[in-house]
Amino acid sequence: MNPVVIYVEEISKYVDAEVTIRGWLHNKRSSGKIQFIQLRDGTGIIQAVVSKAAVGDEIFGQLEGLTQESSLTVTGKAHADKRSPGGYELDVATVQIVQIAEPYPITPKEHGVAFLMKHRHLWLRSQRQHAILRIRHEIIRACRDFFDQRGYTLLDTPILTPNACEGTSSLFETPYFDEKAYLSQSGQLYNEATAAAFGKVYTFGPTFRAEKSKTRRHLMEFWMIEPEIAYATLEDIMSLSESLITCIVQRVLESRRTELLSLERDVSKLEAVQSPFPRMTYDEAVLALQARGLPAQVGNDFGGDEETVLSSTYEKPILIHRYPTSVKAFYMQPDPDQSDRVLCVDVLAPEGYGEIIGGGQRIHDLDLLCRRLQQHNLPIEAFQWYVDLRRYGSVPHAGFGMGIERVVAWICKLDHVRETIPFPRMLYRLYP
Amino acid sequence: MNPVVIYVEEISKYVDAEVTIRGWLHNKRSSGKIQFIQLRDGTGIIQAVVSKAAVGDEIFGQLEGLTQESSLTVTGKAHADKRSPGGYELDVATVQIVQIAEPYPITPKEHGVAFLMKHRHLWLRSQRQHAILRIRHEIIRACRDFFDQRGYTLLDTPILTPNACEGTSSLFETPYFDEKAYLSQSGQLYNEATAAAFGKVYTFGPTFRAEKSKTRRHLMEFWMIEPEIAYATLEDIMSLSESLITCIVQRVLESRRTELLSLERDVSKLEAVQSPFPRMTYDEAVLALQARGLPAQVGNDFGGDEETVLSSTYEKPILIHRYPTSVKAFYMQPDPDQSDRVLCVDVLAPEGYGEIIGGGQRIHDLDLLCRRLQQHNLPIEAFQWYVDLRRYGSVPHAGFGMGIERVVAWICKLDHVRETIPFPRMLYRLYP
Repeated sequence: MNPVVIYVEEISKYVDAEVTIRGWLHNKRSSGKIQFIQLRDGTGIIQAVVSKAAVGDEIFGQLEGLTQESSLTVTGKAHADKRSPGGYELDVATVQIVQIAEPYPITPKEHGVAFLMKHRHLWLRSQRQHAILRIRHEIIRACRDFFDQRGYTLLDTPILTPNACEGTSSLFETPYFDEKAYLSQSGQLYNEATAAAFGKVYTFGPTFRAEKSKTRRHLMEFWMIEPEIAYATLEDIMSLSESLITCIVQRVLESRRTELLSLERDVSKLEAVQSPFPRMTYDEAVLALQARGLPAQVGNDFGGDEETVLSSTYEKPILIHRYPTSVKAFYMQPDPDQSDRVLCVDVLAPEGYGEIIGGGQRIHDLDLLCRRLQQHNLPIEAFQWYVDLRRYGSVPHAGFGMGIERVVAWICKLDHVRETIPFPRMLYRLYP
Repeated sequence: MNPVVIYVEEISKYVDAEVTIRGWLHNKRSSGKIQFIQLRDGTGIIQAVVSKAAVGDEIFGQLEGLTQESSLTVTGKAHADKRSPGGYELDVATVQIVQIAEPYPITPKEHGVAFLMKHRHLWLRSQRQHAILRIRHEIIRACRDFFDQRGYTLLDTPILTPNACEGTSSLFETPYFDEKAYLSQSGQLYNEATAAAFGKVYTFGPTFRAEKSKTRRHLMEFWMIEPEIAYATLEDIMSLSESLITCIVQRVLESRRTELLSLERDVSKLEAVQSPFPRMTYDEAVLALQARGLPAQVGNDFGGDEETVLSSTYEKPILIHRYPTSVKAFYMQPDPDQSDRVLCVDVLAPEGYGEIIGGGQRIHDLDLLCRRLQQHNLPIEAFQWYVDLRRYGSVPHAGFGMGIERVVAWICKLDHVRETIPFPRMLYRLYP
């Protein structure tokens, strides 16, 4: 019988069976006539025990000089072994060396960030990057499941857009045959059209911001999930954002605890993320900042420092709502109780991570929307379709956007968003 | 007790209960003292029966003049009624008119395509577009579930890329601070890096092609799912593409049969999509075309006409493999048995729909890859990271890309891909 080809993650199902595993040399040590090879295959690492008696002198000799990340397949009998790092071991019968790697640039020693970023295509093979990106995948699945299970329709909004939603200065621009197109910063405006068609919708894709900022929270290209609901209010989406976040954290705790622990994440901090979340108005937040000695002023938006302080105060994410009209986008619905405040909410992640969600209720009144477009010097012609939504059965509606990379950074407790996406796009960093 | 606010799709759970539904006027008819309102809320349509006695003269009068797509909420008792279009009806107690719509541009009469495309933001409210885009959502879910359940890791590849994979003529270009960036045509090259890190991976996102072509199969912006597997061969990914397609079709038949039927799709054609699919080499395909009188020549790629003929021949998708090296991309692994053929496969959907999948085995030999880059006049410096994958534990590997819009067009049997995505981007069509 031919040995079955398996992945390391399946090993527990094949105890005492003859299996083949195909992978790369992660590490090895030798004790004369036996070599212990740490073989990684992308799903895990297994220790393969190779004796000279089993594989012969030639192969054994080749293995002794084998470089890190060399590719090889090993066949042998799987057995449980508590002393082995993964709990299982392979007693190797045969080895096939596929390629002897050139000296691998990323070694167990410390490397600088610039070096690692330049070698991102190889850095992705490290255990730390595996843990982070598996958690990312789980977060994305949790988001999609959350909305799918609640009857939302996924409607992918376009990346190439004709109108520059909030000014063109922070947009990537590309020629589009005889026109110009801009890379989308948000699917929200389109979401408003699809929400009026489908009731409750979401979009989930890459978004772009050409900001000349170099902070630990910014990428030029990042993924955003954006729900939008017809007949919804600010209150509705505040609750929804709470449910979404608790659901994501729960899911990662359940399905990716091993990865969290390998990152030395204090999971008790995540276990504390339970509804209800603290809520405060913008004005209350300003007072809270002032009480901590920060020079916050009513009327100004919060910067990174203010967000860090606010989001370090509580154990849970906090919802800050009703910002001044002047610091928010043109489409925000005014608060009926305070005409210079809008029905918006920012959700700040705890532990100093700052904004992960921004959203609110959108203007549904035709005249008010047209006035706002004018006040913001936006070309009403380009927004005609958007204005149409206020002509044909306009309803109160609300939604939000959540940036995936910031959620990953927070849940993994990373210093910087650059590790939260396979190939980060940053200021002056477009390679690889 | 307040009536519960529900969506039409939940109505069967609320028979004999007092419910509120919030939506838009789809259609109505009157018989003197009773009006029958077709109310759509994005999840379905329900007939609301309004009597003058229940709502009073004023509201009743307003309803009589109510325009299509006016927004309103109705409250009343739900009951089953076989004569009613959806099987349920609402006996209305109260009505609240939210907005009286301006005369709606899309009426039940026929409209031209240009008019509908210009009003895409409103066209999306039609039942036909609902059916298509719900099927799209189901197809996307089926794809993600397929790979998630098989242990693939999702690794989102970048949209902004430094290197122009297959020449810059069909790429969208954007300034990227001091550099130039190109919008990705495929995540494949990056997938090859992540597959070497994670074993089996997929990416799923928008891709871009700035081709000046105006056919029923082309969009400038389209979504593609791309798996890539280390240690995989052409044979492996041919089987995988078969499993993926059968799984998708099965899922749509199970979960979206109502929508298929509303599109008058002949579902028996989809039910016939079962493994195994017919397979033929490129050379066999040329002979088959010649036998049908087409001027196909060995050495030329297939065009739209050839694809249409080939994919009209069988009831199932067909796999055409081993094309000439000269008509395929630089990274294709040569066939060991015929040096001028490569280990690639195109999958053509039946019923004349043409290519939905393209893929193959990639070159894993360092010297051969470098030669190919040179032969194709590609800047080796920009591909350094890609070449690195052949230096550090190179292994045979393979993958493919499947265009979602073409799959949706085929499964829904649409004449044109423009209806397969919420906001299609076509030649000279960037609005809305």
